[in-house]
Amino acid sequence: MSGALGFDIDLEDIKFVLFEQLRVQDELATIPKYADFDRMTYEATLDEAARVAKEILAPINGPGDREGCKLDTDGNVTTPQGYKEAWQAVSEGGWIAVSVPPEHGGSGMPLTMGMAVVEMFIGAAMAFEMYPGLTSGAARVIAGFGPDGRKENVAEKMFTGEWAGTMCLTEAGAGSDVGENRCKATPIEGEPGAYHLEGEKIFISGGDHDLTKQIVHLVLARTPDSPPGTKGLSLFLVPKFDFDGDLTLGARNGAYVTKIEEKMGIHGSSTCVLTLGDRAPCKGWLVGNEHEGIKIMFHMMNEARIGVGAQGVAIGATAYHYAKTYAKERLQGSTVANLKDPGAPRAAIIEHPDVKRMLMTMKVQVEAMRSMLYRLGHRNDVAENDTTDKAKAERYMGRVELLVPILKAWCTDVGFDCATQAVQVLGGYGFIGEYPVEQLVRDGKIMSIYEGTNGIQALDLLGRKLRQRGGALFMEWMEDAKKECALGKEEGFGADCDTLAKAVDICGAAAMHLGGLGMQGQMDAALLQAYPFLQMMGTVHLGLESLNQARAAKKFIEREGETSHRKGKLANFKFYVANILPMAVAHAKRVQSGDTTALDASLFD
Amino acid sequence: MSGALGFDIDLEDIKFVLFEQLRVQDELATIPKYADFDRMTYEATLDEAARVAKEILAPINGPGDREGCKLDTDGNVTTPQGYKEAWQAVSEGGWIAVSVPPEHGGSGMPLTMGMAVVEMFIGAAMAFEMYPGLTSGAARVIAGFGPDGRKENVAEKMFTGEWAGTMCLTEAGAGSDVGENRCKATPIEGEPGAYHLEGEKIFISGGDHDLTKQIVHLVLARTPDSPPGTKGLSLFLVPKFDFDGDLTLGARNGAYVTKIEEKMGIHGSSTCVLTLGDRAPCKGWLVGNEHEGIKIMFHMMNEARIGVGAQGVAIGATAYHYAKTYAKERLQGSTVANLKDPGAPRAAIIEHPDVKRMLMTMKVQVEAMRSMLYRLGHRNDVAENDTTDKAKAERYMGRVELLVPILKAWCTDVGFDCATQAVQVLGGYGFIGEYPVEQLVRDGKIMSIYEGTNGIQALDLLGRKLRQRGGALFMEWMEDAKKECALGKEEGFGADCDTLAKAVDICGAAAMHLGGLGMQGQMDAALLQAYPFLQMMGTVHLGLESLNQARAAKKFIEREGETSHRKGKLANFKFYVANILPMAVAHAKRVQSGDTTALDASLFD
Repeated sequence: MSGALGFDIDLEDIKFVLFEQLRVQDELATIPKYADFDRMTYEATLDEAARVAKEILAPINGPGDREGCKLDTDGNVTTPQGYKEAWQAVSEGGWIAVSVPPEHGGSGMPLTMGMAVVEMFIGAAMAFEMYPGLTSGAARVIAGFGPDGRKENVAEKMFTGEWAGTMCLTEAGAGSDVGENRCKATPIEGEPGAYHLEGEKIFISGGDHDLTKQIVHLVLARTPDSPPGTKGLSLFLVPKFDFDGDLTLGARNGAYVTKIEEKMGIHGSSTCVLTLGDRAPCKGWLVGNEHEGIKIMFHMMNEARIGVGAQGVAIGATAYHYAKTYAKERLQGSTVANLKDPGAPRAAIIEHPDVKRMLMTMKVQVEAMRSMLYRLGHRNDVAENDTTDKAKAERYMGRVELLVPILKAWCTDVGFDCATQAVQVLGGYGFIGEYPVEQLVRDGKIMSIYEGTNGIQALDLLGRKLRQRGGALFMEWMEDAKKECALGKEEGFGADCDTLAKAVDICGAAAMHLGGLGMQGQMDAALLQAYPFLQMMGTVHLGLESLNQARAAKKFIEREGETSHRKGKLANFKFYVANILPMAVAHAKRVQSGDTTALDASLFD
Repeated sequence: MSGALGFDIDLEDIKFVLFEQLRVQDELATIPKYADFDRMTYEATLDEAARVAKEILAPINGPGDREGCKLDTDGNVTTPQGYKEAWQAVSEGGWIAVSVPPEHGGSGMPLTMGMAVVEMFIGAAMAFEMYPGLTSGAARVIAGFGPDGRKENVAEKMFTGEWAGTMCLTEAGAGSDVGENRCKATPIEGEPGAYHLEGEKIFISGGDHDLTKQIVHLVLARTPDSPPGTKGLSLFLVPKFDFDGDLTLGARNGAYVTKIEEKMGIHGSSTCVLTLGDRAPCKGWLVGNEHEGIKIMFHMMNEARIGVGAQGVAIGATAYHYAKTYAKERLQGSTVANLKDPGAPRAAIIEHPDVKRMLMTMKVQVEAMRSMLYRLGHRNDVAENDTTDKAKAERYMGRVELLVPILKAWCTDVGFDCATQAVQVLGGYGFIGEYPVEQLVRDGKIMSIYEGTNGIQALDLLGRKLRQRGGALFMEWMEDAKKECALGKEEGFGADCDTLAKAVDICGAAAMHLGGLGMQGQMDAALLQAYPFLQMMGTVHLGLESLNQARAAKKFIEREGETSHRKGKLANFKFYVANILPMAVAHAKRVQSGDTTALDASLFD
């Protein structure tokens, strides 16, 4: 049973990033909205979230994977045992709405705190956490754009976990190409804002379940005579049960789940085909204005993508925790010094250098990713709420815009790699279901696919973010990166800072090269290198996060003395520069190769 | 259903490698043992194997994964539907013994041919193919070392598929550390060569099944008063049913399956706990001499590891086939040129540069791995059977020794990456069971673990193979590699050959560096870089295979004109040097960094 390796959370590291490295308590305290919170409140929240993750969520993760979801012939989905109780605990604890304003029933904490909580919950039970995560996301849309007179009440029902929510974008023919949506919305005469919906949505996470009495679907659909592509799409609120002004539930609406998918992982999360208006008429209300569907979705995109980045961090962190724990317990072989003595005491496998290499690779990347994730959350909080310094807010938001595709794609790639690496550390035991790591690989593979595939993220980075504000977002990143390296050097991190600064310059050169291709109209050639460009930037950026952590740790040590954790941050940076950063140079070499061989379609005849 | 994407085999490429690139028909024809075979016979064999793979094996792969194996309370395992019929077809077709001498009931073909057949069968149904694969491996051991008077008959029963076989090495406390085996073998008085076996073996593939009436287990165990470690281990033939001189089956022997594992993948292959001598006395016969268990296993190791390398190639090849097929069919988005026109015709996703990048990365690596695999098989055939040129035989065998750990580890890593990449190409559809690619990821993860983990392969490469014959194996590899680059340059492959030659030199420098650490007694520091060293050599070696393919293709084109496939080989090499080879330089940088940060145990407190 997965209990053989107990789940745990690295609270020490989480608190280090928040309170020592980013010092969120200082900067956020100056923002009126967050003035009431202090470090003690934040820490108490984190401690309690960790308890919920460990005691309530982690125990349902393995069993939920094995049991999966079930669909009956009436379109009702049953979630695995224990999911209902977990939902209740998460709802009642206010965990769906940590960073939601009090006026909507939330705790009003910064997104940064929400990120830390969500990371813990995903690490404990990714499949389960998709229900609260999507409910929160849908509720935010409704709170912002929902039908007047209903939106506040509905959002509050969702934030408090009484109702749940989904996002219904994908159709069989419209995946990455959302503009291909064919779902129809026809106005109901005499009832302004109300529409009949017809069509089929696929891959709907939480499309039905037994956690709540009511589910609110946000559905992208096309009104009559709309223009083709994304510009003709509108967003609708489609409830499972009709409801009146005081939110009393009425008749069953005609949105039925007709199939759930067998999947590689996240078996506890129902992935549904949702059929609208086939079995019975399906009614919905317009959200925002007609043809604003994509605009509204875009508005929520950063947060959704940061959320998937958080999954990458969480899967990586959990994988590292299990691998490390196992490696300390499992005896196999002897140390190098005793290699030739068959009678020598058996060593824990963590003593083998190759196992240390694997663990260290996971550790440094997980901790740098966590730093990246919380920093993005923090910048977002400041940018959206600090009204005193507009230039800073703009710069912060620009950084969020630039880094979101990298966070989403790179942290999910690296998180997935950590999961496969954990299987490798456990060896044969890693491959069997009795231990909890193979599930991380199966659950984690979806991260690179949904919420915009990682390839789409690379296109977003290269085609949109790099060109935003005339390239200023990227230039500012470079500036700050070089500054970080210079500070690191001043503070005694030596030649490693020069190596990192060189890698930053190489990113600049690679960007120039691709920009040049774009200007020459060689778009295909540039796009061929979009993903390697993202990999390069991701690798360099995590190096910068690692340096920033080392700098904070050094100050911490000077102030309060050395601990394994603090010393580890200095080692992380050294390891990263020597062992991982060289990959960035290789990616850059590739990006600048000018090679367009792969464009020849006849290669794939 | 997986029929949505039909399985297929790239016979054109397989034949190109064998008959145009390696020209096995020429060199093998000079060996008396193979003199009767000509290209036509070989081709007919390949064509028929492809038919079996496509028509008989591929259809059972998806259903077998979903159904899995079942264990009843009597220790009997039932394999998925269709496995019995497939076993019958594979047995009757003589496919278990393609490269087995006729005196043992085989076809007597070269191992090279056996490799090509096995690659196709694994690609069609990896889980199923483990039964014939392990049976063939066990039969080879028995044919070579089995108890006198029984070995020929037993081996023939196995090669013809009437009986099956297993390898029983692992115990709960003895995985990578095989010397920790605790299973006991006590001589039976008055019956020379017969022993009572007691103990428990785990992770036994095919430990029980319903494909044959009889199963022959090869069991590592320790005789009384044996020395500790591997030197005290002996090998035993332990049948499921006792049998007499004419191989008539007798009473049930006390080797019972007491559990089968729930696993990430290869669900059709039963992974068993085999309990010996608990429910009933368990009898076995000594194979070879006492304390020769490991020596005999070592004898078979190259072939077994080449077999796992073949799995890497096969999983990669199948993944590439499905991804390419899907990418040509699936419409999504428009071409770059039409990006701003929502009314533009939808494009097949293969038209998107990022998809082309993924496919090309898979293609070039799969084809280079295939070249490496068949070449190793071929060198092995020549080395073992060409008695006319001893120096050549020794050099060939040295190359096999050097490259086997790289083939095993690198081709399984790359094959697994291809499988995850295929999921990415299919997007959401890749994650669901209706399409056949997520199974490749789940099945394929075991490859890096069994038959010596990939970490163990790296230790073998660095600690043993690099030091063999005073480093001559590696020096000869470098020599041949530089020669290959020089020939490539002469034949018009230009600067890419210089880049590749430089990478070969870098491998030399990296080896010198690690050798230096070893001589200074810094073994831990050297072993920390064992895996990156293997990654580096693997990356460079596949580049060399790619160049060799390009050279052969160029000659082929000059002789018989251009085709997509032939032209593709030239493109492969160009793409490889520009896009993949830079990684080798990054690995080398890491290897030579001198960084030992990860050795500090307190990092993992």
